[in-house]
Amino acid sequence: MPQVLIVLGSKNDAPVARKASDVLKEFGVTSQTVVASAHRTPDRVRELVAGSDARVFIAIAGLSAALPGAVASATVRPVIGVPVSGKVNLDSILSIVQMPAGIPVAGVGLDRGDNAALLALQILGLTDEVIAKKLERHRADMAEAVARDSEEVSKDVQC
Amino acid sequence: MPQVLIVLGSKNDAPVARKASDVLKEFGVTSQTVVASAHRTPDRVRELVAGSDARVFIAIAGLSAALPGAVASATVRPVIGVPVSGKVNLDSILSIVQMPAGIPVAGVGLDRGDNAALLALQILGLTDEVIAKKLERHRADMAEAVARDSEEVSKDVQC
Amino acid sequence: MPQVLIVLGSKNDAPVARKASDVLKEFGVTSQTVVASAHRTPDRVRELVAGSDARVFIAIAGLSAALPGAVASATVRPVIGVPVSGKVNLDSILSIVQMPAGIPVAGVGLDRGDNAALLALQILGLTDEVIAKKLERHRADMAEAVARDSEEVSKDVQC
Amino acid sequence: MPQVLIVLGSKNDAPVARKASDVLKEFGVTSQTVVASAHRTPDRVRELVAGSDARVFIAIAGLSAALPGAVASATVRPVIGVPVSGKVNLDSILSIVQMPAGIPVAGVGLDRGDNAALLALQILGLTDEVIAKKLERHRADMAEAVARDSEEVSKDVQC
Amino acid sequence: MPQVLIVLGSKNDAPVARKASDVLKEFGVTSQTVVASAHRTPDRVRELVAGSDARVFIAIAGLSAALPGAVASATVRPVIGVPVSGKVNLDSILSIVQMPAGIPVAGVGLDRGDNAALLALQILGLTDEVIAKKLERHRADMAEAVARDSEEVSKDVQC
Amino acid sequence: MPQVLIVLGSKNDAPVARKASDVLKEFGVTSQTVVASAHRTPDRVRELVAGSDARVFIAIAGLSAALPGAVASATVRPVIGVPVSGKVNLDSILSIVQMPAGIPVAGVGLDRGDNAALLALQILGLTDEVIAKKLERHRADMAEAVARDSEEVSKDVQC
Amino acid sequence: MPQVLIVLGSKNDAPVARKASDVLKEFGVTSQTVVASAHRTPDRVRELVAGSDARVFIAIAGLSAALPGAVASATVRPVIGVPVSGKVNLDSILSIVQMPAGIPVAGVGLDRGDNAALLALQILGLTDEVIAKKLERHRADMAEAVARDSEEVSKDVQC
Amino acid sequence: MPQVLIVLGSKNDAPVARKASDVLKEFGVTSQTVVASAHRTPDRVRELVAGSDARVFIAIAGLSAALPGAVASATVRPVIGVPVSGKVNLDSILSIVQMPAGIPVAGVGLDRGDNAALLALQILGLTDEVIAKKLERHRADMAEAVARDSEEVSKDVQC
Repeated sequence: MPQVLIVLGSKNDAPVARKASDVLKEFGVTSQTVVASAHRTPDRVRELVAGSDARVFIAIAGLSAALPGAVASATVRPVIGVPVSGKVNLDSILSIVQMPAGIPVAGVGLDRGDNAALLALQILGLTDEVIAKKLERHRADMAEAVARDSEEVSKDVQC
Repeated sequence: MPQVLIVLGSKNDAPVARKASDVLKEFGVTSQTVVASAHRTPDRVRELVAGSDARVFIAIAGLSAALPGAVASATVRPVIGVPVSGKVNLDSILSIVQMPAGIPVAGVGLDRGDNAALLALQILGLTDEVIAKKLERHRADMAEAVARDSEEVSKDVQC
Repeated sequence: MPQVLIVLGSKNDAPVARKASDVLKEFGVTSQTVVASAHRTPDRVRELVAGSDARVFIAIAGLSAALPGAVASATVRPVIGVPVSGKVNLDSILSIVQMPAGIPVAGVGLDRGDNAALLALQILGLTDEVIAKKLERHRADMAEAVARDSEEVSKDVQC
Repeated sequence: MPQVLIVLGSKNDAPVARKASDVLKEFGVTSQTVVASAHRTPDRVRELVAGSDARVFIAIAGLSAALPGAVASATVRPVIGVPVSGKVNLDSILSIVQMPAGIPVAGVGLDRGDNAALLALQILGLTDEVIAKKLERHRADMAEAVARDSEEVSKDVQC
Repeated sequence: MPQVLIVLGSKNDAPVARKASDVLKEFGVTSQTVVASAHRTPDRVRELVAGSDARVFIAIAGLSAALPGAVASATVRPVIGVPVSGKVNLDSILSIVQMPAGIPVAGVGLDRGDNAALLALQILGLTDEVIAKKLERHRADMAEAVARDSEEVSKDVQC
Repeated sequence: MPQVLIVLGSKNDAPVARKASDVLKEFGVTSQTVVASAHRTPDRVRELVAGSDARVFIAIAGLSAALPGAVASATVRPVIGVPVSGKVNLDSILSIVQMPAGIPVAGVGLDRGDNAALLALQILGLTDEVIAKKLERHRADMAEAVARDSEEVSKDVQC
Repeated sequence: MPQVLIVLGSKNDAPVARKASDVLKEFGVTSQTVVASAHRTPDRVRELVAGSDARVFIAIAGLSAALPGAVASATVRPVIGVPVSGKVNLDSILSIVQMPAGIPVAGVGLDRGDNAALLALQILGLTDEVIAKKLERHRADMAEAVARDSEEVSKDVQC
Repeated sequence: MPQVLIVLGSKNDAPVARKASDVLKEFGVTSQTVVASAHRTPDRVRELVAGSDARVFIAIAGLSAALPGAVASATVRPVIGVPVSGKVNLDSILSIVQMPAGIPVAGVGLDRGDNAALLALQILGLTDEVIAKKLERHRADMAEAVARDSEEVSKDVQC
């Protein structure tokens, strides 16, 4: 029973899903990745969401990205939307962010499966001390990585 | 039993619907206007569409305008999408036009309920000689109106 | 005597036309693909359209995509416009979607010849039971493909 | 001790905050609204966030809307970002949505304080059965309102 | 026999036409303003242009502004296109500027009927010494006006 | 003494200039191509323009494309501006098209050196019957090319 | 002899200039506001700038905002560019920000005369301890104002 | 003790930093390049800036580019912001340019590390005659390069 359900609008978006599932796995959180199209299989979207015990949903889609909103309309649990890049980009970003009143989606950046997973972890971490601690650790690790990068760059980009 | 079902994402979009129903009425074609939100009432959208005998659907929505796509996913009859203007405008236009492969929506211009109705009439006119004739007449009327406007403007905007 | 006339603004847009004609062929609907530029050969556009018995027109063009509107102005039968991608993309999308009152074009997504064909089929399917049935079948096939993709992705993107 | 801390980049954004606090209040969830600018008072932002026991943060800002990201960098609890409308609009939307890897913000629509509150409630509702029930009830209420609106519009926009 | 033919896509664009005709009149150049829609009256556009002895054409249109291109396709004399402002603005600008190879339109700024007239005068001035002289004088006048404005502003906006 | 002066903002824009000079040459019109930056060499721009006997100027620039406006401010003869493509594209297009009142630039499409040349030829053709005739011939040639392309595509894209 | 020269592209932009001169005055720094158009009076721009002893220049312009670049090309002292809002907004922003290599302009936000003045003060403050101190004081004042606003808003937007 | 501190939001932006440090070096001005993320390491940003004796700061970042604003909020010395290109581009440009009142950032063009350095030099040159002279020399060199490029292009692009 995965804690996070990752829903893809199309098989082609799998690389963005993998970014999300990799981060979740790293934090010891189970996820399942499924494909379900808001337009080609609206019933499947509703059944998968309604039948899922996942705490958080991550919906990934490009173009007129209706999937996150479709997932959100089928649950009162939080739904994170990830716009996928393409030829226009403003299409998927605006389709996901500009949701009407009443049915919120938590939009993250273009192709940002990793941030979608971190946001899911932050939500789960509210009531899971282990995850919360790991998130703190992850922040510290990132800060250390920045410091290391800085040293490296300082040498490479000499004055 | 209306020939055209006009679906609004929100009561606020009624003025755009009225443009459509007025044109249809003028051509002697019956329509019904209902409100059904892709996000707040997805089941209602599907039931209204599946239960309708309408030949053509006009779906009108602003923001992340998922409604035309939701209607389109519930029928194999033609669906016309009308983006409604707001603070961004590119959001509703792109959400309606950039539909993924497999589920087409016929996008018309921002707030163009009138053109949505004319497009519906063109579709119905393929097998209804009376409508087709009226469309030809309407074209001729528009051309005459342009000529009259031209005379008026020629006088007003003198050289 | 083709049921659908596909008009290209330029020979370079042929791949988008092929997407459309392939889908039509798959559904047993005849089409013809011609090149006619709204700007370089406006008379040719009008003659081709006026002289055609096609039920539906698909007009494909990039940049300042005037072709769908030019086709639409020459017929009261339905015209589907397909914007072609380039360096700006908003140019062809907006040129096709933002048609003025009176002359509607049914805009579909960027490079979406396939959806243009499906929309044409939906229009033809209103009075052709065979096409309508095939469209239902196509929907079911897409849904099954999504389910298969889902299984595949679920295995690849493991938790 | 409020469950949700609402942080405004400027006093002028108070109407958007009020939309959020009104929804929270309606659901029996306490909130506090404070002003803290990512640019004019970065320390204040960090202190308010670090010193808060809020479970969820809502950050509201226009223009180059750095506030949600600044709040997010000071906590591993979930942060919801609300872009505020102005002369450009794409500025605040993109500034909030396009967060870099590692520090997610949950972006909602332009001026959508209401949806930010609902998203916060969905997060709190994961472990608060009362809120979850109220959210289900709210969905049902919205659906009923849509049905009522539909009847009203059907009468007004007659065929 | 007017030297410049001003073609409007719609009567509503008359204020932009007036800006153009006023400038032309001021320079002693005759113009005629007519309405002719590329979409509603394509034949009228071609007839008006083909039947005109105007040296330069100014075509004014909003939305999917096909009119300048339609005028240009009907003559090898120069055509100036003026995009008219509306809810999107990028639509008319890009429709006019992004013309395909072979049929140029000279695009000027949004609602810039005045600049369209000046550009027409520059073209006429190549072979009309009087106009060329007036244009030089107009430049000098503008420069003097700037100097006067500067004095006025310097006083108003004191240090 | 070239009839058309082509001014490039940067050596990198030479391919766009070549499109223009090739077309001009084909029509027997002489041109000279020079580099002069509005920002790096404003005096050079003014001297080149003021010292030139060219009838028409073509100014080609990318990014914040100030060159066409700079050329236009130095002459009352017609100036055609060609935006050059880059990472943003709306920058050069809007910089060239959105000229303020008083100093018009004739904007053509992105990278459209060819159309700039044709527009120059249309201007010169107003008083040069040979060029005008060649332009008519060029139109006919394009129309024939479209017809040939159409036959080719009709065969390739079979129904 | 003003320390800052404020150059306006048009008298209409005076309100934005006043924001700048008010801030400068408040800090005890002298300024002069003049009108000079990059397009209508390029020589005047160069003369004003070349003849000025100002340490910093603020150039304010809308549309295709060439003025900041024109000022920058006439001096090696720092030039701050302020885009002025209008119907498009991306035009003036991109025209000012997307300067080519070699001639930098310091772009600030739309209509942000105030920030232009503060940036000028920061530059002057590098070698003027009094200004630097005042800037520190201004930051503290802003922080206090935020705290006061926060208290006020906390009361108004009650939970 | 470097005169200019270059702060990168990410190691990936090093090529843009190198453009800046190369120009500074060429002018004999020392710089140091460090990595510090506004979101991942906000304290590090503040410490680096507060602890630096640099006269001018250059902050380089892509996406929701909060770094320049974060640097600016930590100092009253001038901060130059460089947006880095990516999939959207308007995100980093608008995030940097559209700073709110009170905390200015000097925005330069996309990936324009070179111009950021030149702007820093112009600021330093106000009180350093050697740098000012070198800037004048650099302008002259650029002008000569333009003249040379022009000769080369004139030959290549023959009429």
